[in-house]
This record gives sequence, structure tokens and C-alpha cells, in this order.
Amino acid sequence: MATVKAYAAMKAEGEFQPFEYDLPTIGPEQVDIDVESCGICHSDLSMRDNEWQMTEYPFVGGHEVIGKVAATGELVTSVQVGDRVGLGWFSRSCMHCDQCLGGDQNLCLAAEGTVTHQMGGFADKVRCHWAWAVPIPDGLPAEKSGPLLCGGITVFNPIVQHGLSPTARVGVVGIGGLGHMAVKFLRAWGCEVTAFSRSRAKEESARELGAHEYVATSEDGALESVAGKFDLILNTTNVDLPWDAYVAALATKGVLHTVGAAPKVEAAIFPMIVGQKSLASSPLGGIATTRKMIEFCARHDITPNVETFAMSDINDAFERLKQAPPLRVVLTR
Amino acid sequence: MATVKAYAAMKAEGEFQPFEYDLPTIGPEQVDIDVESCGICHSDLSMRDNEWQMTEYPFVGGHEVIGKVAATGELVTSVQVGDRVGLGWFSRSCMHCDQCLGGDQNLCLAAEGTVTHQMGGFADKVRCHWAWAVPIPDGLPAEKSGPLLCGGITVFNPIVQHGLSPTARVGVVGIGGLGHMAVKFLRAWGCEVTAFSRSRAKEESARELGAHEYVATSEDGALESVAGKFDLILNTTNVDLPWDAYVAALATKGVLHTVGAAPKVEAAIFPMIVGQKSLASSPLGGIATTRKMIEFCARHDITPNVETFAMSDINDAFERLKQAPPLRVVLTR
Repeated sequence: MATVKAYAAMKAEGEFQPFEYDLPTIGPEQVDIDVESCGICHSDLSMRDNEWQMTEYPFVGGHEVIGKVAATGELVTSVQVGDRVGLGWFSRSCMHCDQCLGGDQNLCLAAEGTVTHQMGGFADKVRCHWAWAVPIPDGLPAEKSGPLLCGGITVFNPIVQHGLSPTARVGVVGIGGLGHMAVKFLRAWGCEVTAFSRSRAKEESARELGAHEYVATSEDGALESVAGKFDLILNTTNVDLPWDAYVAALATKGVLHTVGAAPKVEAAIFPMIVGQKSLASSPLGGIATTRKMIEFCARHDITPNVETFAMSDINDAFERLKQAPPLRVVLTR
Repeated sequence: MATVKAYAAMKAEGEFQPFEYDLPTIGPEQVDIDVESCGICHSDLSMRDNEWQMTEYPFVGGHEVIGKVAATGELVTSVQVGDRVGLGWFSRSCMHCDQCLGGDQNLCLAAEGTVTHQMGGFADKVRCHWAWAVPIPDGLPAEKSGPLLCGGITVFNPIVQHGLSPTARVGVVGIGGLGHMAVKFLRAWGCEVTAFSRSRAKEESARELGAHEYVATSEDGALESVAGKFDLILNTTNVDLPWDAYVAALATKGVLHTVGAAPKVEAAIFPMIVGQKSLASSPLGGIATTRKMIEFCARHDITPNVETFAMSDINDAFERLKQAPPLRVVLTR
């Protein structure tokens, strides 16, 4: 039995405060991780504030963990004590269903979340099923790589899912925590990348991230000017979009892929039919896809832009998150 | 110059009446077809009544033609005089753009329709670009095969587009002119096929067509009872659906594909994300896909169920069409 020193919110919108809890004896398929760093995802904020009506308090968030394996259950063979690993949104999937066996562990109906079914990574230690402790090579810095495991895979998965060709023209809607990683991935993938944001405020950073073009959607005629252009538009925002205008911005056979949980999509069907266009979506990614992403990032030297805070300054870090900058906020120990 | 004996509507909602017009000298890439039979598609009714605000009168409809090549332009090598061919919605595409060269001639932005850019097949003769005169093997009966060229390819294309596996569970929404062909195709494709219709009225015919299961959507809990089941749902209706319930009926990674021109789709995004589900659509199919469909139909002895009328009884035939039976109405000469 180990005592975990964590930070927990005791109620919705409450501040995080030091909190200790005991881990039971490790199970045969479990891995304990000594946390080195943990990113803060917008969903940690949603969970802290019980926006999804599923939070149990005390709430220990944190699901973008980088750390070193501290202990392994007797059946674990994929990692050893001392290995550096990452842990993201999911901490466990059943490994027995068709989704798990088919490589889509992120679609497992019995999957459990790192902050929804257990205590998360705002702590010195976190536990998971071995399969979700993804090896991190030395080339990726510990304080920057955590956000790859949640925000990163969320925008990387659609690229793999659609078998995206480097010849594609791709739009990224929203240049924040998710979108800025998407721009980096797509630039390294070889695509022509266009960043979409409401104003010109993020143009310079978007171009630095790798965007070839920039569309300020609040400007008159901005969306109309790119009609028929994109093979894929990746929507990372969670707000209502002018869906018909984005469908019109797709080339024939184009896909508008949403990973941001906007309330609903509402689009005229006839223009979709005529251009063989579609609306797609996805949640995070499977384990093998996550490993491929890590390998791709190491090869192309891709990490998110991060701003780091000491874990003891967790409440300041959450304030920074609310500004939705084109970077991720990471806590380090 | 040839005089064509056709049937034309002179105004919206007007009856068809005998009408003659002259064809100019045949162009180098054109083919003239002696019409043997011509199906009536619901879009002929929409065009006759100017529902899409694009009809020019006199209007000669008919774009599900089977006939024999009567004349060919000097550059035509794909068919010869006397060959049996079919002609569908499109009569010409540019053959030079990326879509045409990439096999998606149905997505050519300059494509022209058999009843939208010229006089159609309710006539003794009709003209087209050689590429859209698709050879019809002797195994397929002339009086039944016309509807394959429009309604048929409309529901066959999604099967090819999505690389559908015969292991898939597929739903077909609407068992009318389009849907009944979809059921036949999918049964021959090896899939588990479920027919969706409002009432039980079409159950017997749906099962005769090859459906394994039948869902009467107006019954309490009918859609809920198939939640999470389908890899593909093919929507052939043009009415508003309870979109969220159909998304819920998809399995993880499932696709709800609409070929019926309903006004719009409106669906909650979160359930789509969680299950990696998507909404797709398509218009007709490319030429190579159409040829493959014809070959598949000949091999599996698939033709639509048809009710035939003499072309001179065209107005009676249009009345029959309005009942939306699970079959196609075909005019013969």
C-alpha cells in the first residue's frame, strides 16, 4: 500500500488543495507511475466544475502524465520499473471486446478514464492498466510530452483514421491547445495547412507553428474565399460553427472532422450529396495509434508549445488555461 | 440531322404530350441511342414540376435509358452501332478535370444531366457523350435494367465508396424505388440486411427482396431496440429523420450515409465523437463504378422490380410513381 500525495478539488469550482489517499495493493495487470509532469486539459476544468454531471469529489484531475514506472503487476511485460511512460485520458480498457481486439481500445464500451474512474495525475503517483502506459523515448522531453497523450492523440487520430495523404489540403479550425498541435502534425505530415481563427490575433503564432495560410473567419467573405478547397477540415472548437460555409469550403470528397464537443451539427444535405462530402468525428485514439504518434513526434521533433507551472501552483495554472492560448499548460514536479 | 419523337411537359405539373425536335449533326465524341426502355425516377417528377427552379420547357424527362447504339461520332471507340447500352443521370462530363481523371466523373463540376442540359429519354432517341453510354450485357433484360443507371448506382456507389465488407450489418431506410435495390445489392454483397420503414406494410416485400430483419420505425422503441448495431445505415428517404436515434443505431465507427435529398441533417455531436461515427453522402457514381455495378448485377441476376407501361401511357405511369411502391416504373417502346 502506498500513500499518494495529490491535489484535489473538494467541490465544483473549488480550488485544488493538497490531498492524500492510499493505493491498494497493485493488481497483476497494473502499473504505478511516478509522475514527472502532468498537462492540464480543458476537460480537467470541465470535470473539476462538474459540467458533465459525473464528477465525484474529492476530484483529482490530470490525464496528460509523463513519469517513470514505479511498480508493475506480475503479468506486466510491456514496461519495466524505471521506464519512462505516458498516460492519457484512458487508464484502462477491457482488452477483450471486439473494439479492444480490433485496435480501437479508445472505443471500448467498458473503458475507464484516468480522471473519471479513479484518481488522476495531479499527484506524485498514478495507476493504470499496463496497455495505457505508453513508452516515451528519451528524445521527447518529459515536461513537454504529456499533452500528446490526450490533446495530441485527439488531433492525430483523424489523420490516421482517414488515411490522409501528404498531398492533401487541410484546414484546422481553432488554434488553441488542440489546434496548435494539429498544425504541427499536419505540417510534418507534408500537407498544405490552413489555420482558421476568428480574428488575426493568432496569425503570427499559427504561421510559426507551420500554417501556410491563415483565414480570419470574422472577416467578410473569408470562408467564401476558400470554397471548394479542403480535403479535410479538422474542427477543434466546441462552439457552433457556420456548418454550411465549412461544408462549402470542402473539396469534392472532403471531410469535416469534429473533435471538439460542440452541441450539435446542423448542415444542409444537398450540397453534401453533390460533392460527396461527409461529417466525421472521433474520440482520442487506440493504443497502437498512440504509439505511432509518439514515434512520429520523436522523429520529427514535435512537442506541443507548453507553459510550465510547479504542481504546487496548480490553481494559477488553471487560471492561465482559461485564456485558451495556442499552447498547453503543464505542471511539473 | 434526325427528328426525335419524344414526350414533353410544356409547363410545371403539365401532362406529357407528343413532341418532336431535331438533333443536330452528331459530334465526334457523341453517341445516339435508339431507346428501348426508359425508367421513371422521382427526380423526373421533380424536374417536370420545376421543384428545383431549373426546368426549361418543353421538358423531355427520362434518364434511365436502355437502348441500342444508333450512331457514333468519329472519335468513339468504346461502343459500336448496334451495341446495347444504358444511360443515366449524367449525359456528359468534361473528362479533363481532376475529378474526371480520378474516376469521379459524377463529381465533375461541369457534368451535364440527361434531363437538365438536354432532351431526355422519354423519346425514341437520346444523345450522350460516349463515356456515359455504359455497355449492358445480354444477361440483363432491357425492360428492367434502366433504373440501375440512376437509382441503382445511387445506392451501389456508397457500398464501393466505403469499401463495405460482406461481414457488415447494414440498415436500409426507406423501401421504395431506391431502397428496394439497395436491399438486393446488399444481400448479394453478403451483408446482414435490415429494412427500415415506417409501418409493417412493406415487411413482406422487404423480406422477399432479401432483408433479414425489418424495423417498423413508427412502433414504440423500434429504433432503440437496434442501438449500436449497424456498420452502415443507408438512408434513401428525402424526409427529416430522427437523426440522433439513427446515429445511436450505428455501431462504433458506423456511417449514416444519406442519398435522399432531405433538407438538412441535425445531430448531436458528442455521441458521434464517442463512437467515432460519421454522416456521409454521395451523388450517383463514377463510370467505372457503374460498369462494375452492371457486371455485379449480371453475375448475381439482380434487376430492380419494375412495373412497365407503354411509353404512350407515360401519364398513367407518372401517377403510379407517386405511390412510392417498392419498385421502379419503366416505360417501354
